[in-house]
Amino acid sequence: MIVVIKPNTKEENLEKVLKKIQELGFETRVLKGVLRTVIACIGDERGKPQLQQAVEAFDCVESVVPILKPYKLASLETKGERSVIDIGMGVKIGGKDLIVIAGPCSVENEKQIVETAQAVKDAGAKAFRGGAYKPRTSPYSFQGMGEKGLKLLAKGREAVGLPIVTEVMDAGDIPIIADHADVIQVGARNVQNFALLKHLGKVKKPILLKRGMMTTIDEWLMSAEYILAGGNSNIILCERGIRTFETATRNTLDISAVPVLKEKTHLPVIVDPSHGTGFWQYVAPMAFAAIAAGADGLIIEVHQKPETAMSDGAQSLKPQKFAELMKQLRIIAKAVNRIV
Amino acid sequence: MIVVIKPNTKEENLEKVLKKIQELGFETRVLKGVLRTVIACIGDERGKPQLQQAVEAFDCVESVVPILKPYKLASLETKGERSVIDIGMGVKIGGKDLIVIAGPCSVENEKQIVETAQAVKDAGAKAFRGGAYKPRTSPYSFQGMGEKGLKLLAKGREAVGLPIVTEVMDAGDIPIIADHADVIQVGARNVQNFALLKHLGKVKKPILLKRGMMTTIDEWLMSAEYILAGGNSNIILCERGIRTFETATRNTLDISAVPVLKEKTHLPVIVDPSHGTGFWQYVAPMAFAAIAAGADGLIIEVHQKPETAMSDGAQSLKPQKFAELMKQLRIIAKAVNRIV
Amino acid sequence: MIVVIKPNTKEENLEKVLKKIQELGFETRVLKGVLRTVIACIGDERGKPQLQQAVEAFDCVESVVPILKPYKLASLETKGERSVIDIGMGVKIGGKDLIVIAGPCSVENEKQIVETAQAVKDAGAKAFRGGAYKPRTSPYSFQGMGEKGLKLLAKGREAVGLPIVTEVMDAGDIPIIADHADVIQVGARNVQNFALLKHLGKVKKPILLKRGMMTTIDEWLMSAEYILAGGNSNIILCERGIRTFETATRNTLDISAVPVLKEKTHLPVIVDPSHGTGFWQYVAPMAFAAIAAGADGLIIEVHQKPETAMSDGAQSLKPQKFAELMKQLRIIAKAVNRIV
Amino acid sequence: MIVVIKPNTKEENLEKVLKKIQELGFETRVLKGVLRTVIACIGDERGKPQLQQAVEAFDCVESVVPILKPYKLASLETKGERSVIDIGMGVKIGGKDLIVIAGPCSVENEKQIVETAQAVKDAGAKAFRGGAYKPRTSPYSFQGMGEKGLKLLAKGREAVGLPIVTEVMDAGDIPIIADHADVIQVGARNVQNFALLKHLGKVKKPILLKRGMMTTIDEWLMSAEYILAGGNSNIILCERGIRTFETATRNTLDISAVPVLKEKTHLPVIVDPSHGTGFWQYVAPMAFAAIAAGADGLIIEVHQKPETAMSDGAQSLKPQKFAELMKQLRIIAKAVNRIV
Repeated sequence: MIVVIKPNTKEENLEKVLKKIQELGFETRVLKGVLRTVIACIGDERGKPQLQQAVEAFDCVESVVPILKPYKLASLETKGERSVIDIGMGVKIGGKDLIVIAGPCSVENEKQIVETAQAVKDAGAKAFRGGAYKPRTSPYSFQGMGEKGLKLLAKGREAVGLPIVTEVMDAGDIPIIADHADVIQVGARNVQNFALLKHLGKVKKPILLKRGMMTTIDEWLMSAEYILAGGNSNIILCERGIRTFETATRNTLDISAVPVLKEKTHLPVIVDPSHGTGFWQYVAPMAFAAIAAGADGLIIEVHQKPETAMSDGAQSLKPQKFAELMKQLRIIAKAVNRIV
Repeated sequence: MIVVIKPNTKEENLEKVLKKIQELGFETRVLKGVLRTVIACIGDERGKPQLQQAVEAFDCVESVVPILKPYKLASLETKGERSVIDIGMGVKIGGKDLIVIAGPCSVENEKQIVETAQAVKDAGAKAFRGGAYKPRTSPYSFQGMGEKGLKLLAKGREAVGLPIVTEVMDAGDIPIIADHADVIQVGARNVQNFALLKHLGKVKKPILLKRGMMTTIDEWLMSAEYILAGGNSNIILCERGIRTFETATRNTLDISAVPVLKEKTHLPVIVDPSHGTGFWQYVAPMAFAAIAAGADGLIIEVHQKPETAMSDGAQSLKPQKFAELMKQLRIIAKAVNRIV
Repeated sequence: MIVVIKPNTKEENLEKVLKKIQELGFETRVLKGVLRTVIACIGDERGKPQLQQAVEAFDCVESVVPILKPYKLASLETKGERSVIDIGMGVKIGGKDLIVIAGPCSVENEKQIVETAQAVKDAGAKAFRGGAYKPRTSPYSFQGMGEKGLKLLAKGREAVGLPIVTEVMDAGDIPIIADHADVIQVGARNVQNFALLKHLGKVKKPILLKRGMMTTIDEWLMSAEYILAGGNSNIILCERGIRTFETATRNTLDISAVPVLKEKTHLPVIVDPSHGTGFWQYVAPMAFAAIAAGADGLIIEVHQKPETAMSDGAQSLKPQKFAELMKQLRIIAKAVNRIV
Repeated sequence: MIVVIKPNTKEENLEKVLKKIQELGFETRVLKGVLRTVIACIGDERGKPQLQQAVEAFDCVESVVPILKPYKLASLETKGERSVIDIGMGVKIGGKDLIVIAGPCSVENEKQIVETAQAVKDAGAKAFRGGAYKPRTSPYSFQGMGEKGLKLLAKGREAVGLPIVTEVMDAGDIPIIADHADVIQVGARNVQNFALLKHLGKVKKPILLKRGMMTTIDEWLMSAEYILAGGNSNIILCERGIRTFETATRNTLDISAVPVLKEKTHLPVIVDPSHGTGFWQYVAPMAFAAIAAGADGLIIEVHQKPETAMSDGAQSLKPQKFAELMKQLRIIAKAVNRIV
């Protein structure tokens, strides 16, 4: 870490800063420049946020510059090799196989679940998604079927043989979700719900951790670090669009997060072009873009009859459109040496 | 609501949209323009998000434009008069009195709590803040003292006679927090933690609802609507800065949210210049700006020795600086016909 | 256009609004809803911004909602077929051929220009880029070689037979640039330099119009509309990243702008992954993503020795890396039925 | 400047970086940490952007961290005292007097100009604004009266005795604008029109430099640096709102830019609450907020009949409302020890 000292700082105040840094276990080197004095702190600062915090509160400190990224367990540099996450039923995310997860936004009834699961499986999906607990902006919107929805998902799982991905919103629901689902999803709005992340660190099931719409990549990796530090290393990251000034799309899908994450972390990365764009007609081109950029998979909303959907109709693909997307995806996957 | 139909839409598809709208209880008027046909839906669309949702999923619909804001209980138009929230010990927010809430970011020990509470009270604060459960970006940062911290806050309350404001992160902690605190704070990262908001709708204590760094004003009011719809109408809104591209400040404090909210909602609005700027030297000017713009109060971080603070040292004022701020604030409050 | 009237508006004030709308040549329909009265304005509102402007200034108007997009000449709906832009020397952008434009950020000397032009041509580039007038954040940075640089570009053109793309910053330089270059580029910071756009509407040469880092897609198309309305219909749009809160990349490359533009406009769209990411190691994956999403081409910075570059070294590819990118691009282009 | 070297970098590559830094005139210190080696560059890096640029293009460089801000002439640290800008007719910006500039968005006719100028003067404005050259998103919007408008402004000046502020869009218009106006305004969209800034560096008239809607404070000061480096030190900065995700206001007025600028630069700072909010009803509260935060003045749009305005009607105050604002502003100014 580099600490920049304000001009005209008294020697005794500089000494106080040095003493604090040393107390926290770091060596110090003082460099006097032409216009500023800086202190270099020698040591592994990762996992020691108290260093930066303590130092930047001194009046004589102009700024503090970390040299290392704050995450340790999520770092590719630390682990040295990529993670492949086994989500059950023989499906693994992070290897050569591209994994497409598909299904409706909300679980609505048994017929819908079984038929949609069969349709997405036939088209090549490797896992099935469906929401039983729904985060909705309005308290007057459909809030999901809850436990009953989980049971329908389990029926779909049995019927077609695909692992199930579903979202958790309340830590109290973790046990029942873990009983019915193969992957527990954390939605964009809960990516910094640290209480929930701590609970998920103690769970055995893989976690699909979506990026928040205003979460930097570093913050997102720190949220993964919460789960990793809790003991659960089965995490799949999912880019789903960030909030920007542009309103032509629901969010701005940050495809560049894919190569950035591939450089920084060993965790696999998938992309959600449905929430990322908000309009079904943009889902296919953005799905192709994600795979071309190196993503390990996709999560896509599919609904048999979008205009009757309980949620997210406008961004859902009909099974027929989804099948066409998958057909084209196979060709693109091959071009980047992956398999769908 | 206005529904815009795509050019060259077949009559039978238009009919399907009309039928759907009518099924949902709205009258329809079809207007054929030069280049587009639009449908006007007549009825009170507030609290009926399913209308927009269903309609925008039709292939022949180009766009859907709501005419009314989606919140109903939070709306000033609905209620017709401003709310004044009683937070206990004779303190009310939303009237002529400006309420300043002050205290440390984190509860650290009894001495700190009692001394700081006394200092902020002496300077004119009307409530005391302190975090027992802390939302931290890093799992390696101090996470708060928990229940022990709540007890120390209760001691501070007794010692100096100020109502206590503290944050909840986990729905499981609501009962114990409600036992010790006068106001329960929802932090920026939990503003769309809908599971938590539903639990808080059933609580009797007032809720201080911070804006999220990614939350539009309309979304924020929908989060308030969750609590209101649950039965708790004691809500204080707190602007604390949004995330933008600017990095000179920790967040961009959106002072214009104050007049916007005063137009839209009956709920009182306070401002947090400490998190809003992230640097102690900007706290006073932004506190003055907030009051000049019409805010009902402020929440400010005060720490006796920022460089030893367990969190947020850089943005905390020393008690002496806080007292100077309060002195100047009294003069500005008078200029806008308010009382500190 | 839909005009929403405030509740409790007097009939006489409503009449004034109706009269104004009719004066501007639109028919009106008044719809009285349960909570609001709205006026539907019947007529082609495109190219008549004064309508919205006049109406929204009335005190009794709550909001104004345009139904049509404000651009007319740039609209795919108006033109009915896609444009293919001929940039000279047999190169056309917007057809089945993907066009890759490559070259250094700044023109530095003759050797650099001729050698780099040859290298990018050998790798498959169809046009050569190089800056003679450079927009730099700092007045102390290298500002470009100016006219001398243009002459070097012309030499490169002759030597290797590729059309030249170069940027204009000052309307006064248009004649000399038009003399030497095949395509005139408008940089991100000048996308709403309306004085410059008007001058370019009178030029015969094709214009490469970059998106501004703060420009919505609709605003960007309105900037194209300036040039089109001036009489120059040879415009190529170039997505180059928008400014967001994320700092892991220099900008956030908005790949979804590609399918959005393909829906809205007939103009061809290319992507700049060099400025879009700011780091050479992310250029290839984002180039592939752009093509997979449907872009008509790319513009990529290539420098023989990035560490001696006068500008943008960190995001420039060495010729060898560029050749590898082109090789892989050919495979991906084929997968989406395009030709490099 | 601090240069962070990638792990596992060969000594010979480190040497190349060191050599490059030394060639550019800086001393180097190498610090070997536990996980990273960093190079500290000793010297005044301001005004030497080529240092950062060259270094960050080396493959073995992980990141580069400047220690000093890139502006030199705009820096308060360099100048050591605040600037007061004389705009003519006895009006000075940056001292104890708060300067309010008011007038219509566009010049429309002589009667409008003379009457509005008189009205704003009577209410306490110290300068008059009006646009003769108008930057409009649409080519079909009113583009301003041009030279004829300048002449009308000059008539207003004579009639009421207020200095005139008007915008330049095209460098070719600078001479005629300088002939008629007292202050030349650079609009938000031209803040990084470096060609224009260079021309303005050679002008004698004071420049009102608006912030761009996506310009960081540091970039904005670098734009001021262009003008300063060109020889014109009479610059007034004007915060006018930045673009964010929030749409309740036209822009998000960044009031915190005021204290940030007061810390970084000697140049005076005024605020534009009309463009900053986009709605007349928010202008007064945000004007008060700006002054409470320490701004040196305001620029406010005033129109006699907003619903007939050629531009920006919705955000213009009627003279009567403006007079009320000024009355209240006087009281607030006094509270912060300033004079209107």
